[in-house]
Amino acid sequence: MSTKQTVNIAVVGATGAVGGKIVKLLEDKNLPVDTLKLLSSKRSAGKTLSFKGQSVTVEEATPESFEGIDIALFSAGGSISKELAPEAVKRGAVVVDNTSAFRMDENVPLVVPEVNPEDIQKHNGIIANPNCSTIQMVVALKPILDKYGLGRVIVSTYQAVSGAGANAVIELEEQSKQYLNKQEMEANLLPVKGDKKHYPIAFNALPQIDVFQENGYTFEEMKMINETKKIMHLPELPVAATCVRLPFFTSHAESVYIEVEKEGVTVQDIQAELAGFDGIELQDDPSNQVYPTPLSAANKEEVFVGRIRKDLDNDKGFHLWIVSDNLLKGAAWNTVQIAQALIRNNWL
Amino acid sequence: MSTKQTVNIAVVGATGAVGGKIVKLLEDKNLPVDTLKLLSSKRSAGKTLSFKGQSVTVEEATPESFEGIDIALFSAGGSISKELAPEAVKRGAVVVDNTSAFRMDENVPLVVPEVNPEDIQKHNGIIANPNCSTIQMVVALKPILDKYGLGRVIVSTYQAVSGAGANAVIELEEQSKQYLNKQEMEANLLPVKGDKKHYPIAFNALPQIDVFQENGYTFEEMKMINETKKIMHLPELPVAATCVRLPFFTSHAESVYIEVEKEGVTVQDIQAELAGFDGIELQDDPSNQVYPTPLSAANKEEVFVGRIRKDLDNDKGFHLWIVSDNLLKGAAWNTVQIAQALIRNNWL
Repeated sequence: MSTKQTVNIAVVGATGAVGGKIVKLLEDKNLPVDTLKLLSSKRSAGKTLSFKGQSVTVEEATPESFEGIDIALFSAGGSISKELAPEAVKRGAVVVDNTSAFRMDENVPLVVPEVNPEDIQKHNGIIANPNCSTIQMVVALKPILDKYGLGRVIVSTYQAVSGAGANAVIELEEQSKQYLNKQEMEANLLPVKGDKKHYPIAFNALPQIDVFQENGYTFEEMKMINETKKIMHLPELPVAATCVRLPFFTSHAESVYIEVEKEGVTVQDIQAELAGFDGIELQDDPSNQVYPTPLSAANKEEVFVGRIRKDLDNDKGFHLWIVSDNLLKGAAWNTVQIAQALIRNNWL
Repeated sequence: MSTKQTVNIAVVGATGAVGGKIVKLLEDKNLPVDTLKLLSSKRSAGKTLSFKGQSVTVEEATPESFEGIDIALFSAGGSISKELAPEAVKRGAVVVDNTSAFRMDENVPLVVPEVNPEDIQKHNGIIANPNCSTIQMVVALKPILDKYGLGRVIVSTYQAVSGAGANAVIELEEQSKQYLNKQEMEANLLPVKGDKKHYPIAFNALPQIDVFQENGYTFEEMKMINETKKIMHLPELPVAATCVRLPFFTSHAESVYIEVEKEGVTVQDIQAELAGFDGIELQDDPSNQVYPTPLSAANKEEVFVGRIRKDLDNDKGFHLWIVSDNLLKGAAWNTVQIAQALIRNNWL
């Protein structure tokens, strides 16, 4: 791209929950959009979305859709990305991909702008957006890493159903009504669409997000482990994850144990680093019952951190409670932040 | 007590959720009860409960209520226990107390019958029943400790509202209906009755159970830490806990990281020890999506364990998912098991 002042942007999966939030953020954050092209499957084509007061008709995504596009934001599932992202790149677009299709590809930067913005410019046409549960954790860990070093990470997650898509949201609503009306709950989707068994999520907890791998970990757990190492450029960092789906709609929460490398670090030291870091809001005042929750973090862009405690046995150990809106910072907002950086730095 | 074949039992707090389950278990497990006395506050006195086909009228608990009682099972809150348990002991009863009033008293054994049954006979009139979230964890850890040693424990909990009492159950129901009807949720009780602020639990997660201590940990977290060390007779064992209240009614779940002391232990080794241990049911078959959940564990007496994985960085590290009914094994059933042991071994 030359140094022109505006860009042509395509959003693939525009009718989905994340796609819709991307379109809204492109408008709210006032990105210098010349043409906005909204793309979807054939099934959703023809719908309209509003953008800057104009009605934009959603078109079926084809390889030719990307002619003239500078930035293509993909959020329509891994198979669509695998098929169409190379076509977009071939036509000169830079792709920001919100699926797991390219995240562990060593030619593809995996980026959280607060953590590794310098990796954006290393792209070869595709930049991957990390998994939602990974993003919020690495934002919170980055200022601690920079100041005190990181020796290990153990995370247990508390994840919202919207991470499994709009139909999972409907399933939680329907099952909740069924349970409260003393009817049997119908489970057709969670924990994983397409897996063999389905269990109710309403008034329950499911220790399975995404499919199981050979090693007994779920794919979600392995995403958190591998993506954290890649984003933070710490391939040897010990990271462990247990991922659990819970009956709330928005925001993931995480109980995270870390060990820093320096000795004698205090809770106040950690709080000070987090409070001064772009993208984090510290909510940590136990005496006034101040801590983040999924409901309090919903519809906000920040990563919220509270319940910071020093481990009672390990001087280098700390416990944190990290909460963020999984559809915003965990998906749409991180994607739009990458697009902003591409434009602002002329890295297209 | 002499070696008589039947005992007189009092249940204090008989009209509460745990008290009702104790009465049912005394009948279901066929304890050799001669007289059953049901006690409560003045407010609940006069209600009737069924026991072995008879209607038993609940009486107001007074010091004199314990005349002639062999075993008094207390489940009516810490202040009632502090006031009346010594009165019961003075009159010759052995008290099994379900509150936190005496748990850390060094003259009071803290007992989970699968873990430290030998401590029951050391009582000086009072035996304490541990916190619900502690009980299920130590049951799962005991066979691992015995065979492979334990070097550390880090737990993040997923706890049901029934642990906060019957009114918390009603609050979750009411808030769920309000949310689904697009009304504002009314929060009057959780996270902690009597604390300054209240937050909605429906479709949310609250990282506060019980009040905060000076050190930033909640009392629930300190209970898990201190009680685990006491029950397992491992005062130096590093234990860390983060306790979170969640919108389900029954059963607590726990994501637990442990380090064993022996090298080269496998997942199959851990599974074998757990499967062969009394009180545990292994539910661990990821390829068939078999793992415990709060709903699947409800109304059952066992501690269920699944998702057993070896840490990917530490040969001695393992991750477990532990679920049990907080009102049964976490409270009523553990209490009745202690009463059974007192009678069977003539330890009154």
